[in-house]
Amino acid sequence: MLFFMNDYSEGAHPRILEAITNTNNVKQIGYGLDEYCEEAKVLLKKRINRGDLDIHFIPAGTLTNLIAISSFLKPYEAVITSKLGHIAVHETGAIEATGHRLIEVASTDGIIRPEQIDEVMLMHVDEHMVLPRLVYISNATEMGTIYDKESLMKLREKCDEHDLLLYIDGARLGNAITCESSNLTLNDIANLSDAFYIGGTKNGILFGEALVICNPSLKPYIRYSIKQKGGLLAKGRLLGVQFIELFKDNLYFDLSMHTNQMADMLKNGIINLGYKLVTEPSTNLIFTVLPNQINDELKEVCHYEAEFPHDSSSVEARFVTSWATTEEDVHELLEHLKLLKEKYSEYF
Amino acid sequence: MLFFMNDYSEGAHPRILEAITNTNNVKQIGYGLDEYCEEAKVLLKKRINRGDLDIHFIPAGTLTNLIAISSFLKPYEAVITSKLGHIAVHETGAIEATGHRLIEVASTDGIIRPEQIDEVMLMHVDEHMVLPRLVYISNATEMGTIYDKESLMKLREKCDEHDLLLYIDGARLGNAITCESSNLTLNDIANLSDAFYIGGTKNGILFGEALVICNPSLKPYIRYSIKQKGGLLAKGRLLGVQFIELFKDNLYFDLSMHTNQMADMLKNGIINLGYKLVTEPSTNLIFTVLPNQINDELKEVCHYEAEFPHDSSSVEARFVTSWATTEEDVHELLEHLKLLKEKYSEYF
Amino acid sequence: MLFFMNDYSEGAHPRILEAITNTNNVKQIGYGLDEYCEEAKVLLKKRINRGDLDIHFIPAGTLTNLIAISSFLKPYEAVITSKLGHIAVHETGAIEATGHRLIEVASTDGIIRPEQIDEVMLMHVDEHMVLPRLVYISNATEMGTIYDKESLMKLREKCDEHDLLLYIDGARLGNAITCESSNLTLNDIANLSDAFYIGGTKNGILFGEALVICNPSLKPYIRYSIKQKGGLLAKGRLLGVQFIELFKDNLYFDLSMHTNQMADMLKNGIINLGYKLVTEPSTNLIFTVLPNQINDELKEVCHYEAEFPHDSSSVEARFVTSWATTEEDVHELLEHLKLLKEKYSEYF
Amino acid sequence: MLFFMNDYSEGAHPRILEAITNTNNVKQIGYGLDEYCEEAKVLLKKRINRGDLDIHFIPAGTLTNLIAISSFLKPYEAVITSKLGHIAVHETGAIEATGHRLIEVASTDGIIRPEQIDEVMLMHVDEHMVLPRLVYISNATEMGTIYDKESLMKLREKCDEHDLLLYIDGARLGNAITCESSNLTLNDIANLSDAFYIGGTKNGILFGEALVICNPSLKPYIRYSIKQKGGLLAKGRLLGVQFIELFKDNLYFDLSMHTNQMADMLKNGIINLGYKLVTEPSTNLIFTVLPNQINDELKEVCHYEAEFPHDSSSVEARFVTSWATTEEDVHELLEHLKLLKEKYSEYF
Repeated sequence: MLFFMNDYSEGAHPRILEAITNTNNVKQIGYGLDEYCEEAKVLLKKRINRGDLDIHFIPAGTLTNLIAISSFLKPYEAVITSKLGHIAVHETGAIEATGHRLIEVASTDGIIRPEQIDEVMLMHVDEHMVLPRLVYISNATEMGTIYDKESLMKLREKCDEHDLLLYIDGARLGNAITCESSNLTLNDIANLSDAFYIGGTKNGILFGEALVICNPSLKPYIRYSIKQKGGLLAKGRLLGVQFIELFKDNLYFDLSMHTNQMADMLKNGIINLGYKLVTEPSTNLIFTVLPNQINDELKEVCHYEAEFPHDSSSVEARFVTSWATTEEDVHELLEHLKLLKEKYSEYF
Repeated sequence: MLFFMNDYSEGAHPRILEAITNTNNVKQIGYGLDEYCEEAKVLLKKRINRGDLDIHFIPAGTLTNLIAISSFLKPYEAVITSKLGHIAVHETGAIEATGHRLIEVASTDGIIRPEQIDEVMLMHVDEHMVLPRLVYISNATEMGTIYDKESLMKLREKCDEHDLLLYIDGARLGNAITCESSNLTLNDIANLSDAFYIGGTKNGILFGEALVICNPSLKPYIRYSIKQKGGLLAKGRLLGVQFIELFKDNLYFDLSMHTNQMADMLKNGIINLGYKLVTEPSTNLIFTVLPNQINDELKEVCHYEAEFPHDSSSVEARFVTSWATTEEDVHELLEHLKLLKEKYSEYF
Repeated sequence: MLFFMNDYSEGAHPRILEAITNTNNVKQIGYGLDEYCEEAKVLLKKRINRGDLDIHFIPAGTLTNLIAISSFLKPYEAVITSKLGHIAVHETGAIEATGHRLIEVASTDGIIRPEQIDEVMLMHVDEHMVLPRLVYISNATEMGTIYDKESLMKLREKCDEHDLLLYIDGARLGNAITCESSNLTLNDIANLSDAFYIGGTKNGILFGEALVICNPSLKPYIRYSIKQKGGLLAKGRLLGVQFIELFKDNLYFDLSMHTNQMADMLKNGIINLGYKLVTEPSTNLIFTVLPNQINDELKEVCHYEAEFPHDSSSVEARFVTSWATTEEDVHELLEHLKLLKEKYSEYF
Repeated sequence: MLFFMNDYSEGAHPRILEAITNTNNVKQIGYGLDEYCEEAKVLLKKRINRGDLDIHFIPAGTLTNLIAISSFLKPYEAVITSKLGHIAVHETGAIEATGHRLIEVASTDGIIRPEQIDEVMLMHVDEHMVLPRLVYISNATEMGTIYDKESLMKLREKCDEHDLLLYIDGARLGNAITCESSNLTLNDIANLSDAFYIGGTKNGILFGEALVICNPSLKPYIRYSIKQKGGLLAKGRLLGVQFIELFKDNLYFDLSMHTNQMADMLKNGIINLGYKLVTEPSTNLIFTVLPNQINDELKEVCHYEAEFPHDSSSVEARFVTSWATTEEDVHELLEHLKLLKEKYSEYF
């Protein structure tokens, strides 16, 4: 069975397991105060080229988002997000559960435009409405698109104009940085945001994200929030060990780049075969229109998501590549798509 | 340096790492819907000898407590806990952060007595006070003591009398079950509680707890709560794999029993040397009174907690054994204690 | 200065003040357990023709909404509302502050269509999303439109189909019932909803709303929620006294009907003058397009809201009538509009 | 039937009703932005002799407490309170419902001692525990005792030492200021606290409290919190009108002083009769030990609270005087107590 369901369907890259195994017997203090976490933080700050950052390791993405956002905001402050933002769609109201309203702006590609921020601010004028205070974006987005350096700078300017924090969900930050159309560095991300996270779970480790706080006013007491929301792992060392391995050389970016290359190969193949894309992705999420019959047959040989109808006769299928996707996997999927297209040529 | 700081200072038992490594490349669906989690649940239900239970794997203990309790209660319902309960002391107000008041009852050994429940109920008579609805206990407790079958049955009766749920924090459930003075089984725990968790983190795995819901009315939609609070791990398989390894044979109980044996050896040694215990523990937390000078010197050669003063000239030191503690470790610590006692004999 | 700003710009109808004054010296138990509240409840149940209802008096509308909704829902359950719903626009995230996500559906007239419920349900399929559980509507809506009996019955059917609660914000319920196009009774409202409130503040009393719970499963312990959220008034008697006065004869409906009649007179006058309406209202909120110049001059002689631009050269003005609006007020406003139209005829 | 149940059993002092009636027809902007609220704020600032304060009127006490405290604190910050504090006993977990833990210190007279603050701080050392951030006191306390100027200054010093906010629940602030043993002024209260409220409900008005914010860092955006929690009354004017009446001359203090005098008369009478007091109150709550038989008979002729047993043969009765209590009421109650004592002399 082929597997293009997501980028977290395996365990971890072998080097990650090795590192965990090699350090297994060393006794360490708990709760992220161990030597591995310390070393990982030093490494990351070097990589980001910003010695002033605060870094915290948290087991999972939704947990990271809700800890960060609830810690940064006062009760009456709200989050501006794309309607397609992960927090707006797939986190079961996690942010609202901490008490904060989401203000959702329209988007078909997952991107928020600066002028949409103006529109929100224009509508939120007094205490009968929440106070917009933080802009949440994902980079790469949930649609596989990215904010490049220019678009991020413009968003930052807009945030500054309205006294808004900018928080970046980096579940797939490696993909955003290493994709072909990107000119971003980790340093850019840190300079242009108030806080962000570097996603590990979707880029080859067992689990874990690195929350990076750039804005000094947001740093104090964040460990209290992490503990209170259940995100302070007793064996925090596991997160340190994994992030050392990711960033002691280029592993993090190598894995992302491979993922993107597999996605590009798949995307080009799909286009060449004459299938239609829903959006033009830059990274590893490829939304493709599949006639219902093709979808029904392809599901027999490949795992992927195809929940939402495109129209009455076709669905929007999502193919995701990962660090573990091989060229053979891509070729095999394309071969299936080719044969299915020939079989059901009347739909094209 | 000796290490009696806690029971989560290493990685995991080698068999756990092996299991993770062996299953690493198998592709699985995310979020706990994988085959390993399914298998682990089947195994656990067999072990508990109750086929009707709902089981969910959650990465950490505080997260498990807050998910379970906030999911079980209505906004005005409150939790009865010992003043020494983990949720009352060391979870940074995690339960209150979900909106629920803790009603704390006095305790020096971590145990709640049935008559204390009566007292609470007598005081909570109308809508100007919260509605007590759930009794939280830890077994083993934070003081190393345990509820045996009889005391648990009495507490259960009392809960039934007042229409209260009984929830058991089982961070150290293995220790409670395998200690010498215990006559409890997993089946007893399930029959006597509405929900409980089987702690993995403090008993030899990398991370993870198994939340077991016994009361049918508490089962529906709990996965919504797990996701909303950030506890639904993308690679949920890791939890399944580890719990299979713990329960496919007797590993879980073997590890707990070893931990308890090391603790017994240490406890007996300490008593024989003439040191005073703060409580009489049954499991692996040994609170000992150390004269300040002894504490100062012992800290040079051993990690352990000694935060709270016993009186002006001594502290309460906590020694914790774990699955990884060796007989040599215990002997070495006792040797230090013996020498220090001889050196500072004026304090005895 | 004319005043068409809102329907709560005066104190109360003289009969309300009289009733408060007449009962002032009678000593009563606090917190809504007094004889006046009891009498008011009996009266209301008679009026609604449903003896089985639970009724609670709460000082204000936002407070009523947040108490009811947070009491009815589990943490992961969400509220479906029109984008224009009061809770979505003008309550500062009050519902989210209790932890619940709002799912907003598009609307230009404030009305939710049954098929929009289907669309929401289709999109909310698993635990990665909130569980839609309650439909919030306002009747009359924030746009002055109403749900009549037929539309309410269809919405109720749709709610039953999807196991959803139906909650009606009745801040202007009297207006919805007494307007010309309405065929609703209080009994219909109770039979078709799970809970609703009868608004007093916007219909001639000093302050206060009557929360009516129809669904038996929602009744228990609601006084705990009222107290916890700060809505249990020490001198709850004041609410009882006022609601007795409203419902001991026809005062409540007389006031609403007058308000609606004044609104009709104003609406017809505005249409006859050739101004454009934004929506076709049935009750006492009349949204009118005013050229900017006219708005600037009218503001000198009349209070009303005109916050949002209609286009670059005009605004959307909201004129609200109340129980205290007189025919003279309406005539005077229409006279101003007539003169301004003549002065700025180029805009028509 | 005599009435010593509480200090909110009547409507309002006649002057309050008159003021409401006299201003009834004046049209005003809603939500506390009216001219009466403005005037009341000016008056209050003059009375407090501090022009820099922010003042907000809120309908009720629990609502005021939860709005203020939840607005002042970050999610992981906690409140230190006496075990007998109103928020700890009689507000149904209102503060916890906003996410904050209460740290309760022992007290029999309702007073927190400065050294108890030290003890709390000593125990709260890291992120596994909440961060104590605000000290909540009531003045007068729930036991009828008061903090005088000296004790308040010492508490303030202690708060400064530990970077803690001091918030004063002034439900009965008038009683604390006007009682015989008091040397406090409103100006002292403002200078020694970060925020406090001046209670109206329990001192002769229909309803309403004045939240006074002294610490500039706590002022911004508080109206957002008031609205979000449901405390922004549409007809906010009612609160303004009542507070003008209270403070345009000495009415507020006259009412408190009368209440205290009636309490003193009652207290002295009770002592002279040979009954035992539970505490030594300075204000209008008098806790008295009543033999069960006496309690049973007295209840036939007088309303008062007697919920908690003192020992097996007697209860603790609470007698409360109010602005509306007359000398005749007091004499009558004392006469009953005298006769009952004679009848049941064996209990003395």
